[in-house]
Amino acid sequence: MMVLVVYDIADNGLRTRIAEVLKDHGLTRIQKSAFIGDLTPQERETLAEKLSRLQLDETDRIDIFPICERDLKMHILVRRGLVERKLATR
Amino acid sequence: MMVLVVYDIADNGLRTRIAEVLKDHGLTRIQKSAFIGDLTPQERETLAEKLSRLQLDETDRIDIFPICERDLKMHILVRRGLVERKLATR
Repeated sequence: MMVLVVYDIADNGLRTRIAEVLKDHGLTRIQKSAFIGDLTPQERETLAEKLSRLQLDETDRIDIFPICERDLKMHILVRRGLVERKLATR
Repeated sequence: MMVLVVYDIADNGLRTRIAEVLKDHGLTRIQKSAFIGDLTPQERETLAEKLSRLQLDETDRIDIFPICERDLKMHILVRRGLVERKLATR
């Protein structure tokens, strides 16, 4: 199932580290702090555990949103003067 | 239906403006650049049109993800040493 991972991380080095972990898990960047990719439920859990063991700051947070195909079809991408219905990666 | 709105905006003033627009539409902030809330399909479209008319930069992007209740129940929130199954707002 597709998952969207979005994160709010204060430290630049840690933010880079998280992006690497997400890429290692086969996810693709769609925004600076947002990645998307196809994970099994087990891979999702493994990823969450791995991320929780990083040296997150008190205010840091990472949200993992599983999103089904039906919902993904309703995704809207807004860019300058454009409202698109396809999930363009960066 | 719930929607998650995440955005990558270069200009600070515009980023603040977008947060105001999202709050005006009844959405709640969960991360610096991520909001969630319940919108009808029509409200979703109206919001997308409104956002597309803002002075977005070439590289700016806003993603609107409708997410059904079933998927939201699988949401995982990762914080320092914690893996939680509830959608805590900021």
